[in-house]
Amino acid sequence: MEWITVFSPASIGNIGPGFDVLGMAIKGLGDTVQARKIEKGIIISSLESKHPLTNDPEKNTVTLAAREVLNQLGINGGIEFRIKKGLPIGSGLGSSAASAAAGAFAANYLYGNLLTKEQLILPTTKAEETVSGGFFADNTAPALLGGATLTRTLSPLDVIHLGTITNAKIVVVTPDIKILTEEARKIIPQHVPLKDVISNMAHTASIAAAFSKNNYAFFSKSLHDVIIEPARSSLIPGFYEVKQNAILAGADGVTIAGSGPTMFAITHSEEIAEKVKRIMIETFQKNGISAQGLVTEIDVEGTRLI
Amino acid sequence: MEWITVFSPASIGNIGPGFDVLGMAIKGLGDTVQARKIEKGIIISSLESKHPLTNDPEKNTVTLAAREVLNQLGINGGIEFRIKKGLPIGSGLGSSAASAAAGAFAANYLYGNLLTKEQLILPTTKAEETVSGGFFADNTAPALLGGATLTRTLSPLDVIHLGTITNAKIVVVTPDIKILTEEARKIIPQHVPLKDVISNMAHTASIAAAFSKNNYAFFSKSLHDVIIEPARSSLIPGFYEVKQNAILAGADGVTIAGSGPTMFAITHSEEIAEKVKRIMIETFQKNGISAQGLVTEIDVEGTRLI
Repeated sequence: MEWITVFSPASIGNIGPGFDVLGMAIKGLGDTVQARKIEKGIIISSLESKHPLTNDPEKNTVTLAAREVLNQLGINGGIEFRIKKGLPIGSGLGSSAASAAAGAFAANYLYGNLLTKEQLILPTTKAEETVSGGFFADNTAPALLGGATLTRTLSPLDVIHLGTITNAKIVVVTPDIKILTEEARKIIPQHVPLKDVISNMAHTASIAAAFSKNNYAFFSKSLHDVIIEPARSSLIPGFYEVKQNAILAGADGVTIAGSGPTMFAITHSEEIAEKVKRIMIETFQKNGISAQGLVTEIDVEGTRLI
Repeated sequence: MEWITVFSPASIGNIGPGFDVLGMAIKGLGDTVQARKIEKGIIISSLESKHPLTNDPEKNTVTLAAREVLNQLGINGGIEFRIKKGLPIGSGLGSSAASAAAGAFAANYLYGNLLTKEQLILPTTKAEETVSGGFFADNTAPALLGGATLTRTLSPLDVIHLGTITNAKIVVVTPDIKILTEEARKIIPQHVPLKDVISNMAHTASIAAAFSKNNYAFFSKSLHDVIIEPARSSLIPGFYEVKQNAILAGADGVTIAGSGPTMFAITHSEEIAEKVKRIMIETFQKNGISAQGLVTEIDVEGTRLI
């Protein structure tokens, strides 16, 4: 049978204030998966990854998501996968979500393309839950649809596709430390003062308006999170110094990507973006931590055949 | 000197989940103000109001807002006002904000029209603060601009004009009870469980997207407030019965307008709207409370010359 090749982009959950609500896909990083029909079984015949990763089909989100889709369609066939893991694991860039999205997309495509991308969000999110320990769509939905998404409710799962911001530059810097999603969730305050609720509601809504209207000016002022960032920043050595230096270099906003440790900054200027990337990496290095950086944009396509 | 006539619409603060963040203007109710230049002093020469209301220029928001505008412009002239109060006071429909918006608009128009409506939000909100006891733009901004607005921050005051939803029908029902804004604020929880924060953030952002995209489908599912409504509903006898009956009659969402006691419901259908209005009024009556209702739409113009 013919092989197909599917790419699924990295994504930034929360987009700052929108904890468990917002997410956006970014260009330049992602997972690539080759897939073909086989008679039975969902298997991984090859796996390329810089970091240790299981090829057990009961534990890898590519195969878990593919199984969810075939189960949902009531199809009894099989799929063979070859996985090229492009995303670092546990970095806060939606690694397991990208793999799940690619697996779900491939399974649907190989077996008649009966589901829309919107309909793939549920099986993809179920598969990611197995690995991440929580049912959240803030990485799976943007990885599938591209642009930014808003999870209105988890039960039933209801996701709004917001749109994109064409002229936003996104600076992504990943320090070489590990944060587990579960650990990052434990540190979050369980009760929030009303004034902080109002601030995060306002900035989350402002980001939703920015993506709905393709308006960078609104986005530029809205990367302001007074609930999650103060807690999670303690897991990233040098966080406030990196943030301050990025702002001084011209970034309009800087915060944590998903559950971290990746940080991201926004600007409208390619030149500022390069400067911000450099200073963020240097500041991590001054704190004794090596870091990798990337200047990128919002990915509007989401998971796709390549 | 020539008289001008200014109309400013009623508005619904919060729009459900967006406490102190969202607000929208509605058609069919509002305050009308006539104004003309005089040599000095800002005075009220006539006041028509169904309810007791001060004509003391130091206490009425029409004149307070006019003074703020003239002070801001550094103008030493005067204005004579004739006020026709169309809005009930203390109903949750932005009565003092509509008056303030009309006063600010008139003062600016009579003295050279130097400020934009956006620039009138600050003096209007300062004037309203004197009466309402708090500095909030969720009624003043939509009363001025029309459509729906989002207050990103209060200090500095930064408001985003979201847009409108053309095919939304708004049912407004005001029971004959009084709730003071200050009293309605005291009852609100000062700490909020994280899961409720996430829910209100998601629904507030979803309303922002709905107005940004002129999308009633998004709006229809988003009038869901788990923070303020559970507290403030206790001030409105029969609240849950009225809400339930409205939903049974076909409303897509029902909650409190601003600090109440007015309740509002949304639907896309004129026919359902009339049915919902009737059942809401009847349910209040069964609870021993008379009520007035109106089927209306979103006002897109805001404060204007008529």
